[in-house]
Amino acid sequence: MPYTFAERVNHMENSAIRELLKVTEQPQIISFAGGLPAPELFPLKEIQESYAQVFGTGDPSVLQYGTTEGYLPLREEIAAQMRIKGIQAEAENIFLTNGSQQGLDLIAKLFINPGDIVLLQNPSYLGAIQTFRSYQANFETIPTNGTGIDSAALELSIKLNRPKIIYLAPTYQNPTGTTLTVEERKMVLRIASKYNIPIIEDDPYGELHYDGSSILPIRSFSTEDEVVYLGTFSKTLAPGLRLGWIVGGKDLITKLVVAKQGTDLHTSTLLQKATHYYLTHFNPIQHIETIRQAYKIRRDLMLNELKENFNDQAIWTEPSGGMFIWLTLPEAYDTLKLLPYALASNVAYVPGVNFFTDGKIYSNMRLNFSNPSPLQIKQGIKRLASILPNY
Amino acid sequence: MPYTFAERVNHMENSAIRELLKVTEQPQIISFAGGLPAPELFPLKEIQESYAQVFGTGDPSVLQYGTTEGYLPLREEIAAQMRIKGIQAEAENIFLTNGSQQGLDLIAKLFINPGDIVLLQNPSYLGAIQTFRSYQANFETIPTNGTGIDSAALELSIKLNRPKIIYLAPTYQNPTGTTLTVEERKMVLRIASKYNIPIIEDDPYGELHYDGSSILPIRSFSTEDEVVYLGTFSKTLAPGLRLGWIVGGKDLITKLVVAKQGTDLHTSTLLQKATHYYLTHFNPIQHIETIRQAYKIRRDLMLNELKENFNDQAIWTEPSGGMFIWLTLPEAYDTLKLLPYALASNVAYVPGVNFFTDGKIYSNMRLNFSNPSPLQIKQGIKRLASILPNY
Repeated sequence: MPYTFAERVNHMENSAIRELLKVTEQPQIISFAGGLPAPELFPLKEIQESYAQVFGTGDPSVLQYGTTEGYLPLREEIAAQMRIKGIQAEAENIFLTNGSQQGLDLIAKLFINPGDIVLLQNPSYLGAIQTFRSYQANFETIPTNGTGIDSAALELSIKLNRPKIIYLAPTYQNPTGTTLTVEERKMVLRIASKYNIPIIEDDPYGELHYDGSSILPIRSFSTEDEVVYLGTFSKTLAPGLRLGWIVGGKDLITKLVVAKQGTDLHTSTLLQKATHYYLTHFNPIQHIETIRQAYKIRRDLMLNELKENFNDQAIWTEPSGGMFIWLTLPEAYDTLKLLPYALASNVAYVPGVNFFTDGKIYSNMRLNFSNPSPLQIKQGIKRLASILPNY
Repeated sequence: MPYTFAERVNHMENSAIRELLKVTEQPQIISFAGGLPAPELFPLKEIQESYAQVFGTGDPSVLQYGTTEGYLPLREEIAAQMRIKGIQAEAENIFLTNGSQQGLDLIAKLFINPGDIVLLQNPSYLGAIQTFRSYQANFETIPTNGTGIDSAALELSIKLNRPKIIYLAPTYQNPTGTTLTVEERKMVLRIASKYNIPIIEDDPYGELHYDGSSILPIRSFSTEDEVVYLGTFSKTLAPGLRLGWIVGGKDLITKLVVAKQGTDLHTSTLLQKATHYYLTHFNPIQHIETIRQAYKIRRDLMLNELKENFNDQAIWTEPSGGMFIWLTLPEAYDTLKLLPYALASNVAYVPGVNFFTDGKIYSNMRLNFSNPSPLQIKQGIKRLASILPNY
């Protein structure tokens, strides 16, 4: 039977790239394509023990329906962690989600009417673009100049376009790895507040800083609820758990409860209790430090290999944290057309074009350095450089 | 900062009832209000062992990002279970969700434009009504006569209203506990197919049959993909896991993948592997039989207590399965206004009005018999009867 789908389905994209990149599962391919953490660093034993302890209480309520907001002790623990990052939050400000991707979906559900404008960085996280697009949002991009965000142009854009929300990943952004300065954070917040536009601050990578200490989130500078903050355990603990959170005002949390009730009732009770056990009985701070040290080595290695192999052929970002380097080839190159050559040489990346909402810039590639081993980074960057003459 | 929400938020309801029923968490209250399974019957030890075994492999991929469709061996196992129920399905027809509530949300996302009509039973599951409403659906109800669904009136309604989908919980429905006959199932399918209207068959309770064997799902009678089937482990295993599935044609699964990618990427890998271990290494069939025996005793006891205490004052359904009895008082009663009296007598139910999309019938209450103990059922029904004279 042929189905008649809703209009929004026309705005959902089944990424051709995703299909193409399925070959990266083959063992001979060195993949810089995924956004995956290094699985060998997952605290598998500690999470195993956390689940065993939660089951060991013999309390069957770990398998029963739970509250939509989330498990209260976990909300309290996350609020305490948020306060360490400079964000004023109590348990009542914390809402648990199935990863921060669900946070994005619920925020879009609450805010986006068809045709509403989302103002975002250019390029931006592909998953956010897809989510907003599925709610039939339109996009405008945050204007930049040589030194960062252009404040006058930003204010003009807000006046002209009246965006419904501003979506920002200010810290070690996916895909570029770049970070807004403190001054930019304060400036964007000031302008957004002036025009009553909420900022959605997506911060999956904030803890993964490799040069000095962490940078304060935008929400730490806000006094009202101008900023909705999205956090996740996917990068600091493990993505396969599917656990993230939203920090927001009490009124927003109330709306999120209603939205999530219709979406999936609540996030797994067992998962939340096990994660709470892990956070309060093991050493998550030490664990994150372990990840940082490993990823810093991989970032430095990839930057070094890029310098040795691409020096005259490309430019790239030098991120202070996160999981990605953004490489830009001369304009003549199309990284989408280059990808089959890369795959034939057993190396993979994500072409940059899909991270632009207007999809017109073809010369970038996103390179992930957290998942491949140091040896794979050395070999893979050499392979990547070797395909350029073929093009 | 005051937020400007999307139009759909005006269609989301923060149930006042839900707030009122929060007091049912107090231990002195006997609650027939929830839709909760009996936690003392959860296979806690077996699930604990399943998680331990999955962790015990030492394979960190259990904590890594997974595929959106779901873990292939689990999809194969569910497909095999579906075939036992008469549904032709292979792994490629199975899509994993965070409980069947997420199945409803994804189906609504794919099918419902604002203003589209959903044709459904009157009354229907509140969570489905809320989900469809959040996508700004309108509702028409399936016409019935003294003996069940009125086929002529149904065909006329479809011709007149051109519903986008038909939503049915044909087996031990929430809230009434009633079941469509095989003839009704075939008749609804025939008429829906004639007009190309997909049927969404929601089947959380099908395994919980207490009088004879199970009844064939509507999808078992369909030869094309006229029926999208929603299943869940919430009632047969445990709801706190949050795991359900959709059975659909390959084209629908492809659309669901794109929709879920924007919604929450995928369902927990760890959860899916542990559930697969449980299903293939323990005895889920015996476990479901244990639940059936316990719930049958509770159903019989509640029916008996209703007869002894309400015989001249109300009528009620006598469901052959599921978790609910639907009680109807004389029209003069308003169960919403009666609820505070019930709570003051330490007994709770859900007023029936919210299960009607037009919200005009006030004399029903939904009584759950799966969660309260036999002693609580005896005491609670007596308490409930005792409040009627106060009204």
